[in-house]
Amino acid sequence: MKRFSTIALMGRLGSPEVLETLLHLHEFLISAGRRVLVAADVAEQMPVDVEVRHTPEEIGTESDLVIVVGGDGSLLGAARSLSLHDVPVLGVNRGRLGFLTDISPQQLEEQMSAVLAGEYYLEPRFLLDVAVMREGQVLGRGDALNDVVITSGVSARMIELELHIDDQFVYTQRSDGMIISTPTGSTAYSLSGGGPIMHPNLDALVLVPMFPHTLSSRPLVIDGNSKLRIVVHEYNELQPSIVCDGQVNLNASPGDIVIVNKKPARLNLLHPLNHSFYAICRAKLGWGSRLDK
Amino acid sequence: MKRFSTIALMGRLGSPEVLETLLHLHEFLISAGRRVLVAADVAEQMPVDVEVRHTPEEIGTESDLVIVVGGDGSLLGAARSLSLHDVPVLGVNRGRLGFLTDISPQQLEEQMSAVLAGEYYLEPRFLLDVAVMREGQVLGRGDALNDVVITSGVSARMIELELHIDDQFVYTQRSDGMIISTPTGSTAYSLSGGGPIMHPNLDALVLVPMFPHTLSSRPLVIDGNSKLRIVVHEYNELQPSIVCDGQVNLNASPGDIVIVNKKPARLNLLHPLNHSFYAICRAKLGWGSRLDK
Amino acid sequence: MKRFSTIALMGRLGSPEVLETLLHLHEFLISAGRRVLVAADVAEQMPVDVEVRHTPEEIGTESDLVIVVGGDGSLLGAARSLSLHDVPVLGVNRGRLGFLTDISPQQLEEQMSAVLAGEYYLEPRFLLDVAVMREGQVLGRGDALNDVVITSGVSARMIELELHIDDQFVYTQRSDGMIISTPTGSTAYSLSGGGPIMHPNLDALVLVPMFPHTLSSRPLVIDGNSKLRIVVHEYNELQPSIVCDGQVNLNASPGDIVIVNKKPARLNLLHPLNHSFYAICRAKLGWGSRLDK
Amino acid sequence: MKRFSTIALMGRLGSPEVLETLLHLHEFLISAGRRVLVAADVAEQMPVDVEVRHTPEEIGTESDLVIVVGGDGSLLGAARSLSLHDVPVLGVNRGRLGFLTDISPQQLEEQMSAVLAGEYYLEPRFLLDVAVMREGQVLGRGDALNDVVITSGVSARMIELELHIDDQFVYTQRSDGMIISTPTGSTAYSLSGGGPIMHPNLDALVLVPMFPHTLSSRPLVIDGNSKLRIVVHEYNELQPSIVCDGQVNLNASPGDIVIVNKKPARLNLLHPLNHSFYAICRAKLGWGSRLDK
Repeated sequence: MKRFSTIALMGRLGSPEVLETLLHLHEFLISAGRRVLVAADVAEQMPVDVEVRHTPEEIGTESDLVIVVGGDGSLLGAARSLSLHDVPVLGVNRGRLGFLTDISPQQLEEQMSAVLAGEYYLEPRFLLDVAVMREGQVLGRGDALNDVVITSGVSARMIELELHIDDQFVYTQRSDGMIISTPTGSTAYSLSGGGPIMHPNLDALVLVPMFPHTLSSRPLVIDGNSKLRIVVHEYNELQPSIVCDGQVNLNASPGDIVIVNKKPARLNLLHPLNHSFYAICRAKLGWGSRLDK
Repeated sequence: MKRFSTIALMGRLGSPEVLETLLHLHEFLISAGRRVLVAADVAEQMPVDVEVRHTPEEIGTESDLVIVVGGDGSLLGAARSLSLHDVPVLGVNRGRLGFLTDISPQQLEEQMSAVLAGEYYLEPRFLLDVAVMREGQVLGRGDALNDVVITSGVSARMIELELHIDDQFVYTQRSDGMIISTPTGSTAYSLSGGGPIMHPNLDALVLVPMFPHTLSSRPLVIDGNSKLRIVVHEYNELQPSIVCDGQVNLNASPGDIVIVNKKPARLNLLHPLNHSFYAICRAKLGWGSRLDK
Repeated sequence: MKRFSTIALMGRLGSPEVLETLLHLHEFLISAGRRVLVAADVAEQMPVDVEVRHTPEEIGTESDLVIVVGGDGSLLGAARSLSLHDVPVLGVNRGRLGFLTDISPQQLEEQMSAVLAGEYYLEPRFLLDVAVMREGQVLGRGDALNDVVITSGVSARMIELELHIDDQFVYTQRSDGMIISTPTGSTAYSLSGGGPIMHPNLDALVLVPMFPHTLSSRPLVIDGNSKLRIVVHEYNELQPSIVCDGQVNLNASPGDIVIVNKKPARLNLLHPLNHSFYAICRAKLGWGSRLDK
Repeated sequence: MKRFSTIALMGRLGSPEVLETLLHLHEFLISAGRRVLVAADVAEQMPVDVEVRHTPEEIGTESDLVIVVGGDGSLLGAARSLSLHDVPVLGVNRGRLGFLTDISPQQLEEQMSAVLAGEYYLEPRFLLDVAVMREGQVLGRGDALNDVVITSGVSARMIELELHIDDQFVYTQRSDGMIISTPTGSTAYSLSGGGPIMHPNLDALVLVPMFPHTLSSRPLVIDGNSKLRIVVHEYNELQPSIVCDGQVNLNASPGDIVIVNKKPARLNLLHPLNHSFYAICRAKLGWGSRLDK
């Protein structure tokens, strides 16, 4: 049997460039003798006769490989929706190299041929599970591949949080909020907030305070298996907000408790053999550029 | 005629400690032969017969000195409400030394006697005027002694802003927002965001990017008389928010223009002769404390 | 047989307070029926008849526990000198709580009695091995518990370094140098340079650029088992310097290669049962202190 | 009489590109009917018959305009050597846009013709005067256009400094040193150390702590006319070093006092009319570049 006999396509909606690449991929994969599933929302926009699967669940169950076309944001959404399934995911960027979408449209056929021939490797990335608790009940739940951000809900407004790690009290912090980032997310929002870059193979989390009141508050890197418990102080009339990957919002109230843990399942990112995390850092972060010669 | 013959009292509401200090001050000033005006909201909470003036305007017009009891936040509010008047303001803190409220209750009589005897100096602080413009019309207007913060309105969400200073294009910035701080505000929110401390006598502003997308974005210090024009890009469905001193909100929409200028009037902060900005920095920022010996 | 039947004492020289605590400890341990070895340099300064052992090697071989009295710096030196031995080390601070010396003189008898009664736990900390190579030969070698710092040797002067991790090229960096820190060192020099705090149980390193020329250079956290190879560019007349724990210097020349790896042996820090890393952070970093109420 | 009738050429030595541009300029200026002076060191390398003036003093006295070819470093050196004279200076970069050398070789004739026709403006930049004092005597003296850096002399080694501004005690700081930067220098070393960018027209200084021991130490912006007195503590055996513009070193000893003041004379930088500080920031700091779309 062929490697990756059933391949699913997902992508960012509303972009002609993404659609063009999806059509290109669809044609290429059919020619390569693969069965191709297309996500329902994407299929509606494609002017070809495609075998549609309506839900991420069906895609997760039936396909051997999922290809996501778009930016890192598109891949974050796909990763969360597929987090219960064990199917590898490959990202194709449109326009701009991504940390997660590292295949470019210019090299699409060449790189895909190599992947179909078995020239690739899988890189596991862990996700976070976040739950908002009140009086012992779960009020809301979410997943995150990049980060969980706990904020006051209103920008430039303070919130008081109490952090416990593995049942040890860490600190009470007054700040605009807290970013809890995986290594995958360490090159995204966390980096803007002064967090370190963490290699994707690290089993660690970084907690980054947002505009902390105390000047000695610093990013804190802890074991990836840590159990986090953040108590939102019964403080004032704010409605704190918990944001997953900048895409999904959970509401909380003063007094609620936010629990963050690693999810048991992993996302398996599929990379071409020449993929290099550091090469992407150099390209995207301008590590080669200098103030002057 | 006596120095400071009419003195007004303002303060933070709802705090028994503030009320206690206000009563103490009231009694002390009456004994010292001064006429004492009490702000309407404060007077309601005072269990003594006071000569009430209802509005900050009346206080601004009739008094020779305004004393604000509370924290720096209380003084910010008073400063904005008195910004059209030329009356000096003195801050008395409750509980904790402030950058603006530098007289402590323990030294109240001693320091006030010195002030009434003419032992003080005045330190002018400038305020900012902010206007939200749409199609040439002013939609909203505000004052700020500390800072003007332009944000997406929702925490951890990006906004795209275009900055012009004195009609020169500076940059387009994707970030959570921008802090525009006076020297007075440089020890407040701006400092949490990585801005420098600026001596109060500087005629300068600092612009601090909030979680900027571009890693080379840095705080920018410019002349205090600069005319700022910030264009909120017609970008998406966000409703940007402009916050003055963390206390007053103005709403804006994509496409609106925010104008920030120095106000012509100054706030005259009154300090005891032994006041020292650097001493307050040492006390509040722990400049004397060290990691280890 | 008694727990910790042979205990060695080491300490910072030239401090009457350290000497006082060492004498106190010596008397206490003799009373508790232990054999006590005293490091040669310390023994010279002690006005009592002590059983002297001259070298750290002898101490490492013959004792079941080493107690170091002084500051974190004293413990760093002891840890490096004992790095080939598997003896646990306990730190007693003089004057100021340390990250490594967490027993205070005030609680000495109480805490030591508990330790001798078996109430303690061991926390392994890894060390780094650094070698300076030229044309395949090792020119110099050092150990570090906190950090290895590669600099131009002269402050405020640039050096150009090329970093490889596990045989992957990472970047060429122009800066004043690079800090390579263990979790143990993450609360020391690395923290001053903007590095994150890492929990001591993490198996990770952080690389912190010192005054990097490129503004997008950021701290990088990598697996603790990474093999680092740093090439000092053949650049100019500087004599780069490699500093271990701020205490031991190795010289290098342009063109030399610096190899940094984890040492196979661990330091076992002994802690009282109530020891908490986060409590020390709160105490030493002022995480409880705030700008204002 | 012609504008700029006598023009001097200075430049970086040892670079064929710089030499090529100097020859081009020489020919162009002679054709334009100007008298051209060439600095002695540069003249030795030029294969044409040039009217040589040996010293910067002669250049400063006799020429109406000085053109410096090279990088920002070359202009720093020229500026210091001309600091007693009132002659305007224009910078031509080789290879890479500079903050001070903003004319590129590609636009040389076009931009120079405009300058000779009077289309330019002068931008004054102030310099710093630094003196090392011992027992009331001046031991050493230097000038700086960018920055004065006071360090321990050895990288990654602490020094303890006591800072006084205008006879007010500010703080005692344990750090690797302190950067005192002008607005001109704020885009150079100070920026690598976390200092803010300051617009060139600001009359201000920024003090940036280098790897400060205290986490709440932050850059401090003060009036440009401040009188700085930095006492090097009588601390240990280090030989502190005071570095001007990264180019000139003064030695000090523990106990010495370093005095830093603004120099009375200004450097007048000559810019083409289309010069924009913010455009250079965008080009050199990548303010247009973003992590992703």
